[in-house]
Amino acid sequence: MGTILYYYNRMQPETSVFKYPFQYNLEQGRYLPGFELAYTTYGELNPDKSNVVWICHALTGNSNPNDWWSGLVGEGKLYNPKEHFIVCANIIGSCYGSTNPLSVDPETGKPFYHDFPLITIRDVVGAMELLREHLDIDRIEICIGGSLGGQQAIEWAIECPGLIRKLILIATNALHSPWGIAFNEAQRMAIAADKTWTDNSPSAGSEGLKAARSIAMLTYRHYDTYNFSQARDNFDQIDDFRASSYQQYQGEKFRKRFNAFSYWTLTKMMDSHNVGRNRNGLVNALQIITIPTLIIGIASDLLFPVREQHFLQMHIPDATYQEIDSLYGHDGFLVDYGPLTRIIQGWERR
Amino acid sequence: MGTILYYYNRMQPETSVFKYPFQYNLEQGRYLPGFELAYTTYGELNPDKSNVVWICHALTGNSNPNDWWSGLVGEGKLYNPKEHFIVCANIIGSCYGSTNPLSVDPETGKPFYHDFPLITIRDVVGAMELLREHLDIDRIEICIGGSLGGQQAIEWAIECPGLIRKLILIATNALHSPWGIAFNEAQRMAIAADKTWTDNSPSAGSEGLKAARSIAMLTYRHYDTYNFSQARDNFDQIDDFRASSYQQYQGEKFRKRFNAFSYWTLTKMMDSHNVGRNRNGLVNALQIITIPTLIIGIASDLLFPVREQHFLQMHIPDATYQEIDSLYGHDGFLVDYGPLTRIIQGWERR
Repeated sequence: MGTILYYYNRMQPETSVFKYPFQYNLEQGRYLPGFELAYTTYGELNPDKSNVVWICHALTGNSNPNDWWSGLVGEGKLYNPKEHFIVCANIIGSCYGSTNPLSVDPETGKPFYHDFPLITIRDVVGAMELLREHLDIDRIEICIGGSLGGQQAIEWAIECPGLIRKLILIATNALHSPWGIAFNEAQRMAIAADKTWTDNSPSAGSEGLKAARSIAMLTYRHYDTYNFSQARDNFDQIDDFRASSYQQYQGEKFRKRFNAFSYWTLTKMMDSHNVGRNRNGLVNALQIITIPTLIIGIASDLLFPVREQHFLQMHIPDATYQEIDSLYGHDGFLVDYGPLTRIIQGWERR
Repeated sequence: MGTILYYYNRMQPETSVFKYPFQYNLEQGRYLPGFELAYTTYGELNPDKSNVVWICHALTGNSNPNDWWSGLVGEGKLYNPKEHFIVCANIIGSCYGSTNPLSVDPETGKPFYHDFPLITIRDVVGAMELLREHLDIDRIEICIGGSLGGQQAIEWAIECPGLIRKLILIATNALHSPWGIAFNEAQRMAIAADKTWTDNSPSAGSEGLKAARSIAMLTYRHYDTYNFSQARDNFDQIDDFRASSYQQYQGEKFRKRFNAFSYWTLTKMMDSHNVGRNRNGLVNALQIITIPTLIIGIASDLLFPVREQHFLQMHIPDATYQEIDSLYGHDGFLVDYGPLTRIIQGWERR
């Protein structure tokens, strides 16, 4: 009975918190006095520990991919808890259970707020490494991520050769572009324009955060997405357009589930992404990845255009490139489950 | 001597103010209790009044095209004051000399600020019509505009058949897209996030305006523009990227020359643009334009993609379509003087 219940439970995502109690040195020179990572496991580790699928979440995701990747993760899906031991960790800086700017700094007894240090993708990967050791996993069968999640997966493959067996990178890049950085900066400017941003309060900058999300939505979609879903309600109207209320709605929805501090931290993290940093450049870094790597680009992606995935394909020795188109642009990686599943399954069977 | 001096002066742009002292009814139902338009003339009206080139400025332009279109307008240029009588009016709502939200409302004795009414492109064209009559011009040889300027030119051609002889529309559209409206809304959200925006002060919302401009710059350019000019200073850096300081710089530069009230008004004006409104749709409206019309699209334009200019070509009976590419995306219409001059001259000689 106990065993059956145990097995049953494993068929639900389980979220736990990993606590690392020691000083954690960060790439930029500062440190965290320990950290916590919320992580979710789904399925069971098999006896030879060969069924680990590690999923890296994107900018505003959480540790439960069944939440935000429900078409790829779950019973009967590409990543099935009956076969795979699925692991995902909420990244440092994010507000879904891991150490973030609203956490209390044990050295001051107060939340970090604006004093939270710069966290890079490498810092995130280093923390996931500590979690991996804690979970007694020494082999990751598949490491997969889209966007900021792909940036983590690619860094991990470079940092720890031999750990990952297969790498799947979706709508991501080797180096965050000046274009992407400029969009993130515009969003941070919107947060900073909100005079409450300097407050030491969890809601500091929340109106600016709404505007930031409204900008970000545009980079995740494209012209056709808005034409398709946000056309005028009444052709002859002169104001109060549906496209405007959609931006307001998306901003407000995000304000309720996130905070400006985490958003600031994670966009800075994305800006810092550069697998070639202190590794003699991008090409040298990418050539370290000798495992089979599937790279998926989205033709209509404005934020991570396909040339960035072509670059990955060109320099990762055992890379396969596949492309999808999407009405949703960059957000296609969170929406177009059918094409993604077919491409990944086809590549697995190759 | 007096005549020579007069002629000499005409070879410099001259800016004047047209005062309309009567109630001016607006499309949305409200009115302005009179208005002023700053306008610039450059060159001399010839005896048969057949050399008028009327230039319509874009979102943040002013009445002097020699300022912002110096490669197209000036001695020896495409529009040469020695040949043409060049006219450009600062549009209602803009802060370069025409009635705008910082103007004093004669009915209250105080600036309009947030009470400034919604101004549509048709309202702008109606005001330019009054100026045209005041100038005793009854024939416009060429009416030309890019972006919001093109939206005015096309409206004018539809409102006043027979007035304009040749129409040149650059990087513009018949209807502002949900995509364009959403970008404008994101910018207004950044202004509204600035808590000073509710102040009755000329500088209200100015930090939000900086963020808004930073967003707008991205829609005027594209991925390659930033790769070309805003790449990292130091490949191994981790923060303080050049692309970020560029966004800050552009925001600050704009804050110094504009105000959030005018910006709000002009983006709302752009959103309202729809030549088909109350004219039985776009196709019926565009078919009213029977004059020779040159339409120029910019292949890399993200904000007014070329399909919008293809649509104009398809439905304006005597239309010619030409396309340029530009490293500057939408902003190409303000930068790529060589290709624009060659295309327009070739079309004139056809």
